[in-house]
Amino acid sequence: MRIGSLSVDEKRDLLADLIRKKMQRWPNGEAPSGSTAILTQVLIDDHRRLFPALDGKSYFNYGAHGTLPRPAMDAVFDSWEYMQKWGPFSAEVNDWIQQEVSKTIACFGTLLGATSETIALTENVTTGCNIVLWGLDWQQGDHILISDCENPGIVAAIEEVARRFRLHISKFRVDVSETGTIESIARGLRSNTRLVVVSHVLWNTGQVLPLTKIAELCRANRVAQGRTLLLVDGAQSVGVLPLKLAQSGADFYAFTSHKWLCGPEGVGGLFVAPESLEFVQPTFVGWRSVKIDEGDGSFIWQPGAARFHVSTSAYPLFAALRRAVSIHDEFAPIEKRYARILEMSRYAWERLRKADIECSQESPPEVGLVFFRPKADSSPNVVRYLETQSCYTRFMYAPECIRLSLHHFTTRNEVDRLVDLIQDHEQRGPAEIPGEMRNGNSYRYRANA
Amino acid sequence: MRIGSLSVDEKRDLLADLIRKKMQRWPNGEAPSGSTAILTQVLIDDHRRLFPALDGKSYFNYGAHGTLPRPAMDAVFDSWEYMQKWGPFSAEVNDWIQQEVSKTIACFGTLLGATSETIALTENVTTGCNIVLWGLDWQQGDHILISDCENPGIVAAIEEVARRFRLHISKFRVDVSETGTIESIARGLRSNTRLVVVSHVLWNTGQVLPLTKIAELCRANRVAQGRTLLLVDGAQSVGVLPLKLAQSGADFYAFTSHKWLCGPEGVGGLFVAPESLEFVQPTFVGWRSVKIDEGDGSFIWQPGAARFHVSTSAYPLFAALRRAVSIHDEFAPIEKRYARILEMSRYAWERLRKADIECSQESPPEVGLVFFRPKADSSPNVVRYLETQSCYTRFMYAPECIRLSLHHFTTRNEVDRLVDLIQDHEQRGPAEIPGEMRNGNSYRYRANA
Repeated sequence: MRIGSLSVDEKRDLLADLIRKKMQRWPNGEAPSGSTAILTQVLIDDHRRLFPALDGKSYFNYGAHGTLPRPAMDAVFDSWEYMQKWGPFSAEVNDWIQQEVSKTIACFGTLLGATSETIALTENVTTGCNIVLWGLDWQQGDHILISDCENPGIVAAIEEVARRFRLHISKFRVDVSETGTIESIARGLRSNTRLVVVSHVLWNTGQVLPLTKIAELCRANRVAQGRTLLLVDGAQSVGVLPLKLAQSGADFYAFTSHKWLCGPEGVGGLFVAPESLEFVQPTFVGWRSVKIDEGDGSFIWQPGAARFHVSTSAYPLFAALRRAVSIHDEFAPIEKRYARILEMSRYAWERLRKADIECSQESPPEVGLVFFRPKADSSPNVVRYLETQSCYTRFMYAPECIRLSLHHFTTRNEVDRLVDLIQDHEQRGPAEIPGEMRNGNSYRYRANA
Repeated sequence: MRIGSLSVDEKRDLLADLIRKKMQRWPNGEAPSGSTAILTQVLIDDHRRLFPALDGKSYFNYGAHGTLPRPAMDAVFDSWEYMQKWGPFSAEVNDWIQQEVSKTIACFGTLLGATSETIALTENVTTGCNIVLWGLDWQQGDHILISDCENPGIVAAIEEVARRFRLHISKFRVDVSETGTIESIARGLRSNTRLVVVSHVLWNTGQVLPLTKIAELCRANRVAQGRTLLLVDGAQSVGVLPLKLAQSGADFYAFTSHKWLCGPEGVGGLFVAPESLEFVQPTFVGWRSVKIDEGDGSFIWQPGAARFHVSTSAYPLFAALRRAVSIHDEFAPIEKRYARILEMSRYAWERLRKADIECSQESPPEVGLVFFRPKADSSPNVVRYLETQSCYTRFMYAPECIRLSLHHFTTRNEVDRLVDLIQDHEQRGPAEIPGEMRNGNSYRYRANA
C-alpha cells in the first residue's frame, strides 16, 4: 500500500485503525501515558463529535439521561421514511417491523449475554419491573425483600402490588462490604419470600451488588411455590458493566435504552431467564402478547419473553437504539469502555478530594458514578449554578449530595472544568442564580431518574 | 390591499384563505359541485403534499396505521435538538418535558372535549384499556359484558383479567339497528356487571355504537360497588368523529395517535371521567405516577389521570402528535372533516356496488370504513395484489373480507383507481403474486391493528 495514493478519507480510516490497535494495549483502569494518551484523546474527540449534546458542555448525567448520537436520530428518520414509502400499513412494513423487533432484541441479547427468546422490549426499566411484580401468582401474606437503596419509582410499584395482594415488604441494609450485604440478605430471606428486588448498581451510592452471590442465595431459598425469585433493576448497569445475564442467576433483569446506552427515551427491555418464565404471567396484554391456537382458536402466549409485548410501540426508535449501541462498540469493546469509565470516575474522585471537596465514596468508584457534597452552598444551588455554566450534574435528595455520571467518552478537561467551577462557586459563596432556574422544581419532578 | 404588491407566498396564503372561506359552505355529507369542487380539490392536493406516504399511492389503511405528515417528523427532530442542546438531563429540559406533557394532554383534551386532568398519556389504545381492566377492585365472580365485535387484543386482555380474578365474561350481540343493540346490552347487564367494554366504532363492521345511550344503561345499573362502569375503545373513532367525552357518559375512553390522527406510533391516551377516577387504581406504577406527601413522606398518587403515567416515555414524539393534529385542524374543523370522510366512504361504497362488488354494508357507511368481498380471488390474495400496485387495503379474517379506510383527504381518483384494479384482477382471475409477498404471513402478525 502506498500512502501517497490514498484519499484523505482513507488516510483518516488508516489512522483510526492504528489508534484502535494501540487502544488494545490500553491498561484496564489506569490512565494511558505518552503517545497512547494522545492517540486515545484523538479517538475520544472524534467519538464525541457524534453526540450533539456534548458540543460546548461538560456533561455528567448519563445515569439520568444519556446523550443521543446524531446517527441514532438519523436512524429514526430512515425508519420513518421506509415505513411511509412502503406502508405505513402493508405486508412489506409489517415484515419490516417484525425484523426491527427481532434485530433490536438480538442487539440487546448480544450486549447482555442472553438469547433472543429471553428478552422482551418494553418502554423503560420501570415497566419491566412492573411486568414481573404484577405477573407472579401472589398469595396473601407473601414476602418481598428489597434493598434499602432502591429507586423510589420501583418502591412505589412494589408498595402498590403489596397493597393489592396483601404482601409484606421488608428492606435489607446494603453494607459497604460485599460480605456484609450478603449476610444482610441471608438474614432477610424468609420461608415465604417470593421475590427479592435489587439494583445491580445502586443509583444513589454507585455500589455494584454481588449479583451471582445474591442469585445463589435466592435460588437456595425454598418456598411453597418453588424458590425465591430475583428481580434486578439494571438502570445503572446496562451500558456500563460487561454482562452475561444467562449465567448471572438473575430471574428477571430490567433495563433501558436512554441512560448509559445513549439510545432514545421510550425503549427498554426485560430479560426473563428461560426457567423463570413459568413463574410470571403477562399482565398488560394485547395483540402482540398472543397468537391463535391452530386447534381450538383460543389465545395462547407468544413463545418466550415476547409474550410481554403488548401492542403498537414506537418502532422507529428501535433502529436508534441499535445505532447507539453500535457506535459504542465501534469505539471499543465493553470491557475497554468499562475500564475507561473506571479511569474517568477515579480521576474525578481524586480531583474532587484533592480540591478538598467531600466525596461520599471512601474508595475509588466501582462504576461511573461519583457523589460529592459542596461546602459553601446547598447541593441544589450548586447544581443550578453549574447548569448556568453549561455543566450538567444532578441533585440527590437522600442523603443530599450531587451525583456525577462519567462515561467512557468523558474527558479530563470536563472534570477539570467542573472542579474549577465548584471551587469558584465555593469561594464566592452562595450565588445569585437566575430567577427562572431558581423557581424550577424540576429536580423533584424527575427525582427518580 | 394592492394585489400587485404581494409576494408569491402572500398571494398563495390569500388564495388558501379564500378556498377555506369557500369550504365553510361545503355541504355536510354531500359532494361539492362546480367551483367549490375545484377549490376543494386544490386544497386537498395541497394538504396531501404534507404526507410523504401518499406520494404515488392509493392508501386505504388509516384505521390500521395513519400516514405521518412530514412536519410531524420534523417536530420530533426539533424536540431532540432542544433536548440535546439544553440537556438531555437538566432543569431546563425537565421543565420542557413537563410542558410537552401538559401541551400534549391539552391537545388531546381539546380534540376530545375533555379537561386536562381527565387525560393520561399512554403508549397505545390497548395499554389504556389494560389500565382500566387491571385497576378495578374486582371481586371473584364479577361479570364483564363486552360486544361480540371487539378487537382480539382487547379480548385477550379481558380474558387474562377474568382468569386471574375469576370473573365471568359474556358477549352481547351488536344489532344492525341502534334499538336492537341497546336491547341486547340491557338483556346482558346483570346485578354484578362491573364493567361494559365496547368500541365506539366497530373495527370490523364500521358501525357507530350509540355511546350516550349505552352509558345511560350502565350508569342506571346498580351493583354492590356502585354502578356498572363503561370502558370504550376509541381506536376507530378518535380523529374521525367530533367527540365531547366529558358529556358522553363514558367512564373510560382509550385512544391512539397513530391511526386516524396520523400521529406517531407509540403515543396514545386514556380519558377517565372525574367521577370515575375513584374506581380505578394505577397498576403499572413508576416515578411519574406518584408524588411525595409533604407530611409523612409517603407516596400519594398524582392528581387526576396523571397517576396512570409510569416512567420515561418517548417524549419527542409528543410534538409530532400535536403537529399532526394541528395539520388536520388547519385544513378544516373536525365536523367538516367528518363530513368529508362520509362523502368519500359513500363514494367508495357506491362505486364498489356499481362495479358489482359485494359490500358488507347495506347502507352508506357511518364512518370512513368500507368492507367488501372480491369474487374471483381470495381476500388475502387481492390485498397482496393491490399492494403490488401501490394500493393499500387490509384483509379482515372473520368474516373474510377487505377493509378500506378513507380519510378526509382521500380522493376520488384513489377510489376510482382501486375499483379499476379490483376489476382488472377479477377479470384475469387468481393472479401470480410475487413470491416474497405470498409467503409473508404479515396480516396475521398485525391482525388486530
